[in-house]
Amino acid sequence: MGNTLGRIFTLTSFGESHGSSMGIVVDGCPAGLPLNEADVQQEVERRRPGAAGTTERWEPDKVEIISGVYDGHTTGAPICLLSWNKDIDSGVYKKNRFALRPGHADYTAFVKYGGFNDFRGGGRFSGRITLAYVMAGAIARKLISRLDIDVFAHTVQIGEVKAQAQELADTKEKAAKNPLWCADLEAAEKMTRLIEKAKQDKDSLGGIIEGVALNVPVGLGEPVFANFDGELSRALFAIPAVKGVEVGAGFAVAGMKGSENNDLYDIENGRIVTRTNNAGGVLGGISTGMPVIVRVAVKPTASIARSQETVDIKKMAKTNLEVTGRHDTCIVPRAVPAVEAMMAVTICDFVLQAGLMPKVLS
Amino acid sequence: MGNTLGRIFTLTSFGESHGSSMGIVVDGCPAGLPLNEADVQQEVERRRPGAAGTTERWEPDKVEIISGVYDGHTTGAPICLLSWNKDIDSGVYKKNRFALRPGHADYTAFVKYGGFNDFRGGGRFSGRITLAYVMAGAIARKLISRLDIDVFAHTVQIGEVKAQAQELADTKEKAAKNPLWCADLEAAEKMTRLIEKAKQDKDSLGGIIEGVALNVPVGLGEPVFANFDGELSRALFAIPAVKGVEVGAGFAVAGMKGSENNDLYDIENGRIVTRTNNAGGVLGGISTGMPVIVRVAVKPTASIARSQETVDIKKMAKTNLEVTGRHDTCIVPRAVPAVEAMMAVTICDFVLQAGLMPKVLS
Amino acid sequence: MGNTLGRIFTLTSFGESHGSSMGIVVDGCPAGLPLNEADVQQEVERRRPGAAGTTERWEPDKVEIISGVYDGHTTGAPICLLSWNKDIDSGVYKKNRFALRPGHADYTAFVKYGGFNDFRGGGRFSGRITLAYVMAGAIARKLISRLDIDVFAHTVQIGEVKAQAQELADTKEKAAKNPLWCADLEAAEKMTRLIEKAKQDKDSLGGIIEGVALNVPVGLGEPVFANFDGELSRALFAIPAVKGVEVGAGFAVAGMKGSENNDLYDIENGRIVTRTNNAGGVLGGISTGMPVIVRVAVKPTASIARSQETVDIKKMAKTNLEVTGRHDTCIVPRAVPAVEAMMAVTICDFVLQAGLMPKVLS
Amino acid sequence: MGNTLGRIFTLTSFGESHGSSMGIVVDGCPAGLPLNEADVQQEVERRRPGAAGTTERWEPDKVEIISGVYDGHTTGAPICLLSWNKDIDSGVYKKNRFALRPGHADYTAFVKYGGFNDFRGGGRFSGRITLAYVMAGAIARKLISRLDIDVFAHTVQIGEVKAQAQELADTKEKAAKNPLWCADLEAAEKMTRLIEKAKQDKDSLGGIIEGVALNVPVGLGEPVFANFDGELSRALFAIPAVKGVEVGAGFAVAGMKGSENNDLYDIENGRIVTRTNNAGGVLGGISTGMPVIVRVAVKPTASIARSQETVDIKKMAKTNLEVTGRHDTCIVPRAVPAVEAMMAVTICDFVLQAGLMPKVLS
Repeated sequence: MGNTLGRIFTLTSFGESHGSSMGIVVDGCPAGLPLNEADVQQEVERRRPGAAGTTERWEPDKVEIISGVYDGHTTGAPICLLSWNKDIDSGVYKKNRFALRPGHADYTAFVKYGGFNDFRGGGRFSGRITLAYVMAGAIARKLISRLDIDVFAHTVQIGEVKAQAQELADTKEKAAKNPLWCADLEAAEKMTRLIEKAKQDKDSLGGIIEGVALNVPVGLGEPVFANFDGELSRALFAIPAVKGVEVGAGFAVAGMKGSENNDLYDIENGRIVTRTNNAGGVLGGISTGMPVIVRVAVKPTASIARSQETVDIKKMAKTNLEVTGRHDTCIVPRAVPAVEAMMAVTICDFVLQAGLMPKVLS
Repeated sequence: MGNTLGRIFTLTSFGESHGSSMGIVVDGCPAGLPLNEADVQQEVERRRPGAAGTTERWEPDKVEIISGVYDGHTTGAPICLLSWNKDIDSGVYKKNRFALRPGHADYTAFVKYGGFNDFRGGGRFSGRITLAYVMAGAIARKLISRLDIDVFAHTVQIGEVKAQAQELADTKEKAAKNPLWCADLEAAEKMTRLIEKAKQDKDSLGGIIEGVALNVPVGLGEPVFANFDGELSRALFAIPAVKGVEVGAGFAVAGMKGSENNDLYDIENGRIVTRTNNAGGVLGGISTGMPVIVRVAVKPTASIARSQETVDIKKMAKTNLEVTGRHDTCIVPRAVPAVEAMMAVTICDFVLQAGLMPKVLS
Repeated sequence: MGNTLGRIFTLTSFGESHGSSMGIVVDGCPAGLPLNEADVQQEVERRRPGAAGTTERWEPDKVEIISGVYDGHTTGAPICLLSWNKDIDSGVYKKNRFALRPGHADYTAFVKYGGFNDFRGGGRFSGRITLAYVMAGAIARKLISRLDIDVFAHTVQIGEVKAQAQELADTKEKAAKNPLWCADLEAAEKMTRLIEKAKQDKDSLGGIIEGVALNVPVGLGEPVFANFDGELSRALFAIPAVKGVEVGAGFAVAGMKGSENNDLYDIENGRIVTRTNNAGGVLGGISTGMPVIVRVAVKPTASIARSQETVDIKKMAKTNLEVTGRHDTCIVPRAVPAVEAMMAVTICDFVLQAGLMPKVLS
Repeated sequence: MGNTLGRIFTLTSFGESHGSSMGIVVDGCPAGLPLNEADVQQEVERRRPGAAGTTERWEPDKVEIISGVYDGHTTGAPICLLSWNKDIDSGVYKKNRFALRPGHADYTAFVKYGGFNDFRGGGRFSGRITLAYVMAGAIARKLISRLDIDVFAHTVQIGEVKAQAQELADTKEKAAKNPLWCADLEAAEKMTRLIEKAKQDKDSLGGIIEGVALNVPVGLGEPVFANFDGELSRALFAIPAVKGVEVGAGFAVAGMKGSENNDLYDIENGRIVTRTNNAGGVLGGISTGMPVIVRVAVKPTASIARSQETVDIKKMAKTNLEVTGRHDTCIVPRAVPAVEAMMAVTICDFVLQAGLMPKVLS
């Protein structure tokens, strides 16, 4: 329970950071979609380390399609995607098994699973789980691109460095130009230096990612409990380290007046639009047709190489811990493809619920 | 589809703002809980207007239990709760039917439902839907109080007025002292004046509500897709006007370093605690046993009496509109009980999933 | 939990036999369907007593639409349907409260709900629950009739009297000619006499109902776990007293050879058909386009006026019991509309899942 | 959609007959259950061919646990189980790809998936899917055995040979003595000869399997839509070739009187029991504590080596077809472990829903 998401387009996640593999079963994909491993691999590559301060664990992250595809097309059957873990080094985890790493799920998982959880590399709670999200997201993105829906995400803040907002039309392209996925290239440089500094300081950094979906049709989302923003939010909270989700103007609405926040309607090329988009593309839990804009807060990597006071849960005694292992100083850039994936997956499910895509593609 | 929430403790919502009634079916409540209409009415009263700038629509909001209770106790059968609408005045809605109210769901609902949606008073998209949430929340709160779980919410910002944080232990009591549910009494006065001013200006205000749950047991939440914060977030987005949800330090984590954000473990009375609570009571999607802290951003009431430019969707022509009707200048205080209700409902479902409550109470 | 059925077209049931009402919330109905109370009432009338040996409880069974309909059309919002109970006489139930009625749910409900269940008239376990099914079924039938899908059921056996199979094309019309819904009119007369005899003998009778759905499109049903026959079966088991469900040749397949049972394919008017229909319209869990044929076994009414040995669960002592109250000697004819309703509801959900019906009707 | 079953203990199936593998993800298993591949392999062995007339395809059916188990125990994370397909020969399927095999899902799958379905060996519609069910069932059985719940199934009819009912206490042991799983050893011999004869005749046989669950606690099942018999029935219809499910006296209730069918209550060792068990352990959709008895009708293998008239769906022309490949003359014995698995899985989910098993085992 808890590892399946969605109503028609559903994901079932399995696998652990230091287990045999990370995997996901994607059910509900229409038949006839051209799909091969390279399609998925290409998305997975975008998630791999490379930017300043990213992990030294070097996983090939090679995608295998186990089921659901025949003769180059989806069959309508569930698609199982797997990536075998290769570069596993669990030694340090075993050594410090009972010393709770601050900011990690060690304590909650220990209590919930009575110590039986696979703690190696964080097990199910590792950021590595997003590899599976990205695999599923690759399929979702291919599907919704048939309706010209384009989903992308970019880094808008790392530590105290905030990116200047760019024209929405240019953002995707600009963000692709640097490994931090930051569309403000000057800010990107500052962010890089900040990350290098934090790494030297044996510390870590958080940030904010903005996700954008263009060409989302009007009318997606099911009020009142399965609404567009609510489902999106739940899907984004499935990304480890996310501590907040906001839509459109988000928390800034608190300081706005109705006369400022209301997006006025207008007609453009015979189509109803709003002049501003404080709503972030969602009104009443239903997509408006304007760009969908969400932002997620990503906390600083919990693993830091400094000594931290903590508790040994077996001895029930205080202790000190330096979390070594191999970690990203700042997980934000590597979470960008995960944000895209979870947005794509959620939108894809809504598209299928709305009957906007045939059950057989051609 | 979309009007049922939860896995074991489930809510099914029905009813419209200007229809016969607002109702909700609560399924999965254990048998044997003492319950009568007064228990629910008491919670509903907390949601009724009264503060500065609240609506002039005067609904009795009288709760009726239609099923699921016999001889003063829940029977284990679904509990249908109803409140008949009485003070309905749909004239203005009919007159302006096709002029899209900015900031409302008029446009999205019109497209999604092809104009067949009940537009009177916003229909399903009215804030009045939270009356049903509060009715269901009353049952959830009674249930989880058996585990000493206490849920409350309070206003931390209205417009630009921010409340000073109070001691967590005092917050609930202080917030109960004013109709804005703001624990900082000085701020509350400023907020009141701000609301009065906005009303005069024919404008409206948004704000931020903080929800708190105390004594939540360690271990609630199902990683990875049905995690504690994700489900909470989705439930909170079901409250109209919510544009953001954050947990613990929330969006502030973006500017924090790992060494600041990590909550260090300690032992207190033989129990593992954290010295700080930036996590807001959730790590790895599982409750930590520390207070659960969430904040939701509430947008300013979309209905403002000023003239706004908009579009008449029937004529597909620009027009101007003053939204008259009867509205709250600031919905924040009336959303406070809704935040409590959705938190209680979500936590109750997790408690039942975790098998922490017997199926028959005594 | 357990009182909601369906994925897109969903039913949430509430109400008790001797509570205030029987009700149901139908969610997922497309907007724009013309619907009024008379449409539903007409289906409900078919379920009312009248045949030999039917109950003397005389409920008006007056349908009220509480939500989800505006201006004569469905709005896309959940439709709550209610029928207030009027002719309630709970005296005898209270008197014999702890003497377990053989064949009823008294014992299982007592244990499951710790004695808190509403036992009056069987509470949630009364056949009266099918009133709500029929209300929901009325909506489903209106919807699927847009695809020319026609669902009907008829009595094929009562006690030892078996009806002769009629031409499928004539069956519906013939069955409508007598209150037992038996298409073999001679058999119907024998059944009537058998019921009268059983009533005199203070005994009761069971039977078999056949449900038929015509013009079901090819391709409904989701292998492997939500297949067409499996979902149909689960829905039919929701009708109290059902002890078996079979599809097509059903249990007779056990004695057949592959060469007899296989339905050979042919082409008719440019369309692929099978010459026989032992499959009952389902292959591989997917509808074939041939008539869907199911049969359900209905047990004899558990309430019989004879003295039966049983146990008083409070005293934990043996006792004797005559179940008086007001009961049907044979529930079979009154279950016919319930079979139709559950078939219609299930097929409707599949039709919507398959995207075969627009979300807005016109 | 459609490949996930269950509410708390959930199964997600993937894989095809001639694809890389058959697999299943089991979610919701409590942590701390000792589990290794041998535990599962042992159940899988019971499903392998061996009896008269079973297939010549010789798959090793070697089980691999891909995730969810660490250090010999379940971790609380989803358990992915895989068996790689080895002995694949798809030649004949490719040759006859468009000639619809009578009695198979070729036609329905072709239409539903637009010809993109993996048709090799029946793809998702192969009886081989039950390998995955049995893998999942092995875990469910280990879990419920902790409450002493014992599930077994046996063959009660093949073709026209019906087994004599044995004492329930002896049935399991007797059935284990022959590869047909028939507790009446004389009947088993006749069945064997009948199968040999059918094989010679290039024909096939169906039959009936009875499933039994002992020591099921009173109170499992959620009325009205997720009741014990309804959920069981749906799970059993997931086994290919099942055309009917009955509980207790099943279809025989049609010919019984209430005075015969009602199971009278009695007290035995301080516990309430019924003297007979026509109810098959279920009343009002809730388990009674008496043995759960279900019977499923299994149709004769659709693949027969005789020439059958059919249609070539590509040419839309009549044709003749001999289904060669490698098939079981009678699938009944190999479906016995599948019936056990689906019963175990369903009961396990109800046990977990009822909170009767801790989330952490020890």
